[in-house]
Order: sequence, then structure tokens, then C-alpha cells
Amino acid sequence: MTMPDVRVNGARLRKTLEEMARIGGTPGGGVQRLALSDEDKQARDLFVRWLEELNLEISIDEMGNIFGRRPGKNNDLPPVMSGSHIDSQPKGGRFDGILGVMGPLEVLRTLQENSIETERPLIVVAWTNEEGSRFPPAMIASGVWAGALDRDWAYQRADIQGKTFVQELERIGYRGRVPARKFPVHAYYEYHIEQGPVLEREGKTIGAPRGIQGLHWYDITIEGEANQVGPTPMEGRHDALCAAAEMILKVNRLPEKMGGNMVATVGEIHNHPNSRNIIPDKVRFTVDIRSWDDELALGAWKGLKQDFKDIAGSRGCPVSIEETWQVSHSPFEEALVRRVLDTAGELGYSSLKMVSGAGHDASYMNQIAPTAMIFVPSIGGRSHVEVENTTWEDCEAGANVLLHCLLKSANEG
Amino acid sequence: MTMPDVRVNGARLRKTLEEMARIGGTPGGGVQRLALSDEDKQARDLFVRWLEELNLEISIDEMGNIFGRRPGKNNDLPPVMSGSHIDSQPKGGRFDGILGVMGPLEVLRTLQENSIETERPLIVVAWTNEEGSRFPPAMIASGVWAGALDRDWAYQRADIQGKTFVQELERIGYRGRVPARKFPVHAYYEYHIEQGPVLEREGKTIGAPRGIQGLHWYDITIEGEANQVGPTPMEGRHDALCAAAEMILKVNRLPEKMGGNMVATVGEIHNHPNSRNIIPDKVRFTVDIRSWDDELALGAWKGLKQDFKDIAGSRGCPVSIEETWQVSHSPFEEALVRRVLDTAGELGYSSLKMVSGAGHDASYMNQIAPTAMIFVPSIGGRSHVEVENTTWEDCEAGANVLLHCLLKSANEG
Repeated sequence: MTMPDVRVNGARLRKTLEEMARIGGTPGGGVQRLALSDEDKQARDLFVRWLEELNLEISIDEMGNIFGRRPGKNNDLPPVMSGSHIDSQPKGGRFDGILGVMGPLEVLRTLQENSIETERPLIVVAWTNEEGSRFPPAMIASGVWAGALDRDWAYQRADIQGKTFVQELERIGYRGRVPARKFPVHAYYEYHIEQGPVLEREGKTIGAPRGIQGLHWYDITIEGEANQVGPTPMEGRHDALCAAAEMILKVNRLPEKMGGNMVATVGEIHNHPNSRNIIPDKVRFTVDIRSWDDELALGAWKGLKQDFKDIAGSRGCPVSIEETWQVSHSPFEEALVRRVLDTAGELGYSSLKMVSGAGHDASYMNQIAPTAMIFVPSIGGRSHVEVENTTWEDCEAGANVLLHCLLKSANEG
Repeated sequence: MTMPDVRVNGARLRKTLEEMARIGGTPGGGVQRLALSDEDKQARDLFVRWLEELNLEISIDEMGNIFGRRPGKNNDLPPVMSGSHIDSQPKGGRFDGILGVMGPLEVLRTLQENSIETERPLIVVAWTNEEGSRFPPAMIASGVWAGALDRDWAYQRADIQGKTFVQELERIGYRGRVPARKFPVHAYYEYHIEQGPVLEREGKTIGAPRGIQGLHWYDITIEGEANQVGPTPMEGRHDALCAAAEMILKVNRLPEKMGGNMVATVGEIHNHPNSRNIIPDKVRFTVDIRSWDDELALGAWKGLKQDFKDIAGSRGCPVSIEETWQVSHSPFEEALVRRVLDTAGELGYSSLKMVSGAGHDASYMNQIAPTAMIFVPSIGGRSHVEVENTTWEDCEAGANVLLHCLLKSANEG
């Protein structure tokens, strides 16, 4: 099979992304489009309008996931699917998620205008609440769809104001009637920015992750004793923030100590009563450990937990630990990863086999269907910030790789 | 001069304190009576009613300070004054401040019912906003009264909701017409709980601080680089929270490193964006250094500042430092300190000469008049918390020492 000469329209993709970036656009050049907010609704409405203009079969499920289906020649065959998410981090960037929805949309537009038919149906999908920054945890709606999470549990996730997922889904008019339930999928591709510095550093255009790192989330609470700082001698203090500081540095040194491929981070901390002249009596913080090597990560955690207990003991500050979320590393379908690399080569783009540090909807899709991802470089490796950026050329390159991967999979018998 | 046989009424003092503790009382047994709040107003109204019942001359100044004056035999002589504050920390205790207002009130009640006259007038005072937890900094109104702070600057101090001191003073009806301006004072005594563990540990009833430690406040801001944690390798990260953790531990180790009498604390920290999966890009925290030895504290700060710069350099996280507030150590009038110790002995109470770690309105009074303080033990050294406590016996003991110190000073020619 020789590759057809078709390519996506890079200028149109850019225009589409720029139009989307205006919805929830921030003064710093980023986007704030939290899940199920008014901005999310506005972006969904625009996406649905574009799906309608392509005459796709649109369905919205009970989790608010939006599917646009283009029939194939043989609609009894399981479809090929591609998508990502429309929601963003608070003060996030213009590419994270939305590139993976507008990319396949551009692919379908290209097929339409070139009157290219495929054997199998093609589906573009926008998953609800991937970020999880408003309704934790992340990737909730693809998780429900894949059967890994419970719908009613997901419905009751609440934001910091106490509004539930289902209330807000209803409010913006995206609680569909179709059950959020997996169906057979022949192949799933997710197109995404890398969100790290590796492609840029290596000078490559296309990244093909062999899978997603394992992810381990812990919530730590330290109890101290509050007292006026002035009259309370250093000896005999139980300063929860000092205990936390020691623990944070243990987390930071963990990857170096363990060796191997691992990152470990404390991103969130809450100090109580957080008053300049009172010794802190309660500190909560999060630990995020990621590695391709599940054993390594669990071993690291075991050592870290002992370090935490030792620090708690020596400072007289009891520690309690909640193991919030554990996801094992998730290797993608080797044949599809190979296809991404090969397709990049055929199109003349440099490419790199790598690992995805971040979680994606592809993690859950990988549980139910052959899955791969296509990465393009993040300038300076920056992501989840307003200055997040990717060149238009790279956006176009990734979409071309996606186009031809989708064509190959959709024409398989 | 032999000591008259008079004593305060301990039961009445207890009843008075218990009545006050109901205003802003918290479920945890403490008090929340933030400066210029509705609770502050309610407590002021009750205090003023009690002053009226004693037929004192009441005046309220333009900072909301409340004075109750009992004339002496010779009203041309400068008065003797005693007082403290009515406001509390958020979720503070039932004794901090209010004991030093209800104590001299009980003294005046005792003099009244025993028909004891003094040469000099006696004044009980309640200073506005000593804690500074709603309108920073602390001790603002005694500072204005003593001429150390500017009234209009104080008026514009705002709480976190943006309400100004003067707006709130006006709202609760305590913006008086008398100028907040010092007048000659023969002696000032402030009666207060220790807020530290020393008296309890030494088994003493009365503490006579030789003065107040110097206080040094700094605000530190660290800039890092925000990125998604998963795809961002450890090398090349600029994690502002890790830099802060190293700095916090430097602060904690400072007193041991410097030797001498010193405490150093980080009580407050703000982390940005404070999201579990984003590397922190901005951390602000406070440093509080206190010592009787000003040179030692400044030397400590000099070394600490260098440590901060080194940490900032090695982590690639620029640090900026604001030197917020510096108060030199403040030795009280030796003769008055001696008088507190002697009076305690004459009354049969054990006593200890010590240092006050906390700032008090006495700090500013000490700039304009001979000043001393009377401390009673804090159970477990706890203060600025709901469980703050002092036995009723000790409350009575301190009030008796105050009674006789005031009598001695007020009968001086």
C-alpha cells in the first residue's frame, strides 16, 4: 500500500485553534476553560457546530463526552477513534487537550474535501473533564466510558464551591442521554503536545510514546502544636511546617536516590493557621511520584514513607498518610506505536520513541482498545501555564501523522 | 511604708473574665474577637458599661482606644496607667489581652469598694488592634498614641477583604473625637499571660520581664518555573517550593547555629499555583526572628540572607527579600521591674525575672513612660490557640501584684 498524497490544511488548523483560544483566553496569552464552566460550554457549542458543518453523526453521552462519527464503507467494523479534551487548567495553555480534538477534526475536514472514504467509521471525540483541576480526579469521563470508574461516583465529584459534576453538566446542557459505555474500537490515537522538554532538546518533530508512566498520588497531613512564636523556645517546639520542609526535600531527592526514570514532586501545600507569629500546627501536602517502572516507584514510596515517619518522630509531629491514587505504567500497543514512528518517517518528519510523563485519556482507552499517541514539541517544555506554546508547523506535522495513521487503521480489514 | 491589707476579689475577676469570654466564644473553648469586628464592639460596649458603673471619666480617642480615669488627690500629677487589649487572634484564647484590661478594672473596683484614694489619678486603658491579625501590623493604636506611628497611615490599614481600619472603626461607633496623642504618664504596668512555658516549667507564679525581645520580620518571595510535573525531568527544574523548604530549615536551625537567646520561625507560607501536578512557580513566606540581643539577631539575619541567596542560586529560583519590620529589644524601667518582683514577694508569691518573647502595647508605652509588665503562667505554654489557659488562682495573684504596684506608683509624690 502506498501512501496517498493527501495532507491536512495547516492554515485552517491554525485558524481553528486560534478561534478556540479566544474562548476563555487570558491576558497572559493562555486559556482558562475549566470543565463544565461557561467557557467550556461555549467551546463545546462551537465544536458541535463544526461537527454539524461536516454532517457527522453527533452523539453526546451522559458524561458529556461528545462524539462525531463519519461512517465508513463497512459500518459493521469497529471504528477508529481519535480525540482528547476541551477543558483546561486554571490559567493553562492554548494547546493542551484542544490540539487533540481540533487535530482529528482537521483530518475529517481533509477527508471530506478530498472525498476520501475509509473502510471503517472514524470518530472524533472530546472527553469531559480531563484535567480534573475543577472536579478531581483527572480523566474522569474517559474513565467512566471505559468502565474503569463509576458514573454515579463521578456525578458527585464536587468543585471547591460544592457544585457537583452532574449539576454543572446539567446546567451547561451537556448531560446527554446516550449511556457512557465503551463499545468496540479498532484503534485509538491521541494527538497531544508533549508537555515536556525532550523533543525540543533532541531536535525531533514527532514523539511516539511507548506508553504512560505509572502515577502515584499521596496526601500527607502533619500535626504540630500551635504557639505564639516569641515566647516559645526552640526546644520543645512541634513545628509542622519544619517537618513538612524536611519531607519535601526527601521527595525532591528521591529520583536521584533511586536512580532510574522517575520524577517526584510536591505541588500543593496548605499550612495552618498560616499566621506570621504562630507556630504551624497542621500542614497538608501532596506527593506525586511517576515512573515507567512500577516496582521502582513502589520501592521509592516505601523508603519515603519510612523517612516521613522518622521525621515525624524526631520532630514530635504525628504524620498521617492517605494513598490517594495509584495507576500502573501503561504500555501502548506496540504495532500502533511503530505505525506512528513509521508514518512520521514516510512524511519526512524526524521522530523519537519516548515515554509520556503525563496522564491522558489515552490511559483509559489503552485498557479497552489498541492505543497510541502522537506528540509534538512544547517550546521550552512549558505546559499548564499561559506561555505554553508549539509552532504552527509542528501542529500541522502532527496532524499529518495523525491523518495517515487514521487512514491506515481505518482501512484495515 | 507598709503594704495595706487590701486584696482584689478573685471570684469577681473570674466572673468578669468568663462574661467577656462569652463574646466571640468558640466551640473549642477559645475566643474569636478580631479587631473592630462586631464581637470587638460588643466587648467594648460591655467594658464601657463597667467603667460607667464605677463612675470613671471615660474618653475614647480617634484610634478607638478607651480610657477610664479615676481621679487622684492631686490631679496635676501625671497619672499611673494600666491596660492591654480586647481584640484576639482568630481562634485565640480567653486570656490574651483581656486579662490585662479586666485586671486593672478589678483593681479599680477594689479601690472603690474599699474607699481607697491615691495621690495620682489611675487610668485603665484598652488599646485597639493589638494583635494586628486583622489589620497588620500589631500594636497599631498604642503605636499611634505614643507618637511612633502615623494616624492616617494606620487608618488606611486594610483587612483581607479590603475594609480599612478607619471604615471599620467608624462602623462600630468607636471613632472618638479625642486626639490619639500621648500625655505624661508616671508609670505604665501591663498585666498579661506569659504565652510561653517558662513560668510553668520553673514553678513560679509571677513573671517580671526585664523587657521585650527585639523583633525582626522579613517577607521572602521565590520565583520558580511552573510546568506539568509528569513530563518535566528533575534536572532543569526550578521548583520554588523546594527552595523554600531549604530556606525554612535554615531559619529553623538559626538559633542553634548562632547560640544565645533567640527564636526564629516561619509561620506563614503561600504556594502558587498550589496544584498537585504543577511545579510551584512562586512561593512567599515570612521570617520572624526574636532576640534580646539586637546584634545577634542582625548577625543571624545577615548570614541567613546569604544562605537564601546561595539556595536561590543553586536552584535557579531568584529570591527577593523585604525587610518588613524591625524593633530593637526594649528594656523596661529597672525600678518598676524590681517593684513587680518585690511586690510579688511581699504578697507571698514566687517570682522570676525573665524576658518577654512577644510584643505588647507595653513596647510602645516603654518609649514614653516608665514601664513594666506582670506575667502569670500559661498552662503548657500554649497561647494564640483556643486551649490557651491560666488558673483562676494565678489570675487573682497577678491582679493582686498589679493592685499593689499601682498603689505604690500612684502614691509616689
